[in-house]
Amino acid sequence: MTPDVFKTIDLNSDLGESFGAWRMGDDAALLAVVSSANIACGFHAGDPDIMRHTVSLAVEHNVAIGAHVSLPDLQGFGRREMAVTPNEAYAMTLYQIGALHGFTRAAGTRLRHVKPHGALYNMAARDAALADAIAQATRDFDPSLCLFGLAGSALLKAGRDAGLTVAAEAFADRSYRADGSLQPRREPGAVISESDQAIAQAMAIAREGSVRAVDGQIITLQADTLCVHGDGAHAVAFARSLHAALEAAGMVVAAPHLSGARA
Amino acid sequence: MTPDVFKTIDLNSDLGESFGAWRMGDDAALLAVVSSANIACGFHAGDPDIMRHTVSLAVEHNVAIGAHVSLPDLQGFGRREMAVTPNEAYAMTLYQIGALHGFTRAAGTRLRHVKPHGALYNMAARDAALADAIAQATRDFDPSLCLFGLAGSALLKAGRDAGLTVAAEAFADRSYRADGSLQPRREPGAVISESDQAIAQAMAIAREGSVRAVDGQIITLQADTLCVHGDGAHAVAFARSLHAALEAAGMVVAAPHLSGARA
Amino acid sequence: MTPDVFKTIDLNSDLGESFGAWRMGDDAALLAVVSSANIACGFHAGDPDIMRHTVSLAVEHNVAIGAHVSLPDLQGFGRREMAVTPNEAYAMTLYQIGALHGFTRAAGTRLRHVKPHGALYNMAARDAALADAIAQATRDFDPSLCLFGLAGSALLKAGRDAGLTVAAEAFADRSYRADGSLQPRREPGAVISESDQAIAQAMAIAREGSVRAVDGQIITLQADTLCVHGDGAHAVAFARSLHAALEAAGMVVAAPHLSGARA
Amino acid sequence: MTPDVFKTIDLNSDLGESFGAWRMGDDAALLAVVSSANIACGFHAGDPDIMRHTVSLAVEHNVAIGAHVSLPDLQGFGRREMAVTPNEAYAMTLYQIGALHGFTRAAGTRLRHVKPHGALYNMAARDAALADAIAQATRDFDPSLCLFGLAGSALLKAGRDAGLTVAAEAFADRSYRADGSLQPRREPGAVISESDQAIAQAMAIAREGSVRAVDGQIITLQADTLCVHGDGAHAVAFARSLHAALEAAGMVVAAPHLSGARA
Repeated sequence: MTPDVFKTIDLNSDLGESFGAWRMGDDAALLAVVSSANIACGFHAGDPDIMRHTVSLAVEHNVAIGAHVSLPDLQGFGRREMAVTPNEAYAMTLYQIGALHGFTRAAGTRLRHVKPHGALYNMAARDAALADAIAQATRDFDPSLCLFGLAGSALLKAGRDAGLTVAAEAFADRSYRADGSLQPRREPGAVISESDQAIAQAMAIAREGSVRAVDGQIITLQADTLCVHGDGAHAVAFARSLHAALEAAGMVVAAPHLSGARA
Repeated sequence: MTPDVFKTIDLNSDLGESFGAWRMGDDAALLAVVSSANIACGFHAGDPDIMRHTVSLAVEHNVAIGAHVSLPDLQGFGRREMAVTPNEAYAMTLYQIGALHGFTRAAGTRLRHVKPHGALYNMAARDAALADAIAQATRDFDPSLCLFGLAGSALLKAGRDAGLTVAAEAFADRSYRADGSLQPRREPGAVISESDQAIAQAMAIAREGSVRAVDGQIITLQADTLCVHGDGAHAVAFARSLHAALEAAGMVVAAPHLSGARA
Repeated sequence: MTPDVFKTIDLNSDLGESFGAWRMGDDAALLAVVSSANIACGFHAGDPDIMRHTVSLAVEHNVAIGAHVSLPDLQGFGRREMAVTPNEAYAMTLYQIGALHGFTRAAGTRLRHVKPHGALYNMAARDAALADAIAQATRDFDPSLCLFGLAGSALLKAGRDAGLTVAAEAFADRSYRADGSLQPRREPGAVISESDQAIAQAMAIAREGSVRAVDGQIITLQADTLCVHGDGAHAVAFARSLHAALEAAGMVVAAPHLSGARA
Repeated sequence: MTPDVFKTIDLNSDLGESFGAWRMGDDAALLAVVSSANIACGFHAGDPDIMRHTVSLAVEHNVAIGAHVSLPDLQGFGRREMAVTPNEAYAMTLYQIGALHGFTRAAGTRLRHVKPHGALYNMAARDAALADAIAQATRDFDPSLCLFGLAGSALLKAGRDAGLTVAAEAFADRSYRADGSLQPRREPGAVISESDQAIAQAMAIAREGSVRAVDGQIITLQADTLCVHGDGAHAVAFARSLHAALEAAGMVVAAPHLSGARA
């Protein structure tokens, strides 16, 4: 892989996570910064009105739209693992992609990617059968969709096996272990709360394809997209700083489908 | 309108109304009889697994697939009127059409029609703003979709105004008033429980475009599609008898999009 | 009725309206001001974890706990009218009272009142059959519960007919018509956004049992409890100002069950 | 333990598992046979109307009523394991017990037991922290409630530790392994479909406190209650046969709270 590949990086954020009367995140501010929007589809957050509004905002900001598909668990915000079968995962993925597609189609635009959310993301990172089900649902809906998953995960392998373009995702604010997996949240140092340090990690990933693991080793971590969290007091400020740092380093922030993600 | 128009009639039925562990209706048997399947989209019945299965059954029987869109009320089976705004109706219609489209697209087929369910159907029959919202969501998704609505209703007018093909629906087993509206269920004689009488009414509608109202008058009732109920002990037997009677009278049972519904 | 009756007034607020990952309102701050907490029971807001936490906060602040029962409509926050039958209203009321009672009982305290929420509150204000169903469910659970309803409403009459203690509710920030009903929200001047004016109205209701209607007439409005809204930027500040004004006027702010609401 | 203890045995069944327009099981027929009814509380099945009706039927048949508490998963019928925390399990248990209590209290009767359903039952059989949470919620609601759990499970231990009366449950139609655990459903011979064989196993458990494990060993299995499944074509017939066999052997079929379950 040539250094040029690293000149382009996607910034993605989880958006449309309000529900009914409840608000979450500052979608409009984040859409001014990111290149890909993962929009909730009603299973962990979002409802038809929110989805319509968020799609419209994303179109306005010319940000690539993806379906943020989840386990059916509004109360748990899709963060509680559930023992769903691959068949169930296939069907819930297709349902949610289709539902969001309703809004992109009516808005005269199209879906660009699919990213599992929360517990489904984590389960699909390690469970090949579940990962295959999600990848197949994505491909059966539209083989030109890009599948987002954790760098090095079973989901990315499943996406490639299904013939999809995939985007390897990395995190600015999460620590990595020497094997390339995320330091679990219950372990010390799992979350990088210091903004400068998170930006430094993101820059190393984006420019050099490497990251310093919790044990001090420098490991290879090739990523196509960096996740920028949308909630939290400093989320928007951090996203802006990261975007500015990337551009200052001569990188182009753009959605993977525009830049040709690695297959 | 020439008599020839009446040579073709659609038989539609509400299908995919199971949910999770609960079964409702004999979908496979009805799919052998009807020409259009209105498939529940998860708001009043149906779930992703049921939707996938029902689409697959409909494809197998070569029956036209439509989205049976509903108010969000699983417990009430979509039969309780809710004060939703036109904007909410628009978004929930688009969401449900999209969700079902996920399954038809993955199955290599396409949606042919949209029919509001239960309370939403009744509200859209009389409320022009709600009817417009549903028609616009249908058209914004796909202007080639056919919109099913009660013959003479605000929904059909809204569909025509939106440039959609519409299918006027009539009922074999419901009595009509002289103004062409349905006799309300709370009134005597609202439901025609005698099978022969229901078939006679359906035949008059299909062949002559007329029906005898509860006050004895013969009124004009031009319908493109007849609704065959899927639940109840004798539903399948009745549907078969009606289908046989229509064919014996030289009529072709076919979905409106194949026969060219009146616009 | 002697003037002394007006020396005591209840301040109630709708609390526990977060849901899952979504936050709403500043419950702890309001609990320091109000005397009655209407706690959401999971149908329009609240979930078991939120309910447990809110009950615990209310106990800590020694505030009377009531069940804020709603139509089943999380997405619409219980604000959309639904055509439920009296039987359905009875059962959903009992279910929600019971569910909240689970938490008060485990916390070693008890329920003091029941207040329908949103659309159910409005429907029960005018629909006697629905009002009776709610009152009967309340009495069948515990005849010592106090039923909160709009002053002059069908719900209060139903509560009295069922033998319950009732509390007539009035609003500081909503305009009244000459017949004692609320000026509908779609009409001009329905909401009193000026804080001083709202406090003046509340004081007139609490001290004199009267209010100036939108047409300028002074009408009688005897209220046992004043509703203090919990959301909005200035909610807590307003509640504190109102509480201070009431105390400065020599009134006691206390829950109706402690002061003996009029029956 | 003296042989006399075995003269009484409880027959329990999962009831009230309809939802909205969907029917499941023949509750009235089973209530004529069993001594304890585990009534669904709206999380995996049941809704307020169904709960009210089922409580009323149970009262009519003089059958002991228990709360059949579940994970929140209507679509999955509570059968999919979810990674809930002990705090979440505590709160959802309390919510559901309270909700059902609303109906028993209004009906002038009381709750007698609590039994976790499906995936929650299985998780609580092996996970001590979850089991403790469920037991504590049960005790915090009412320390006189009897907790039903799999014989030998972590849940029964948690119940005893919480000071509750517990009822060890055994199954007529499930095979046991030599360690007293159930043969998993995915293993051969897990379910005993032959009615005579299931009755023989139930009789051995009820009369002798022993069962033949899948490896042929006779193991000790002391049970206070036998679960009779409510769904399936022959459910009612089987329940009747088992009840008759128990009575023919001189045993009394009665709920544990009447017979004094072992603590």
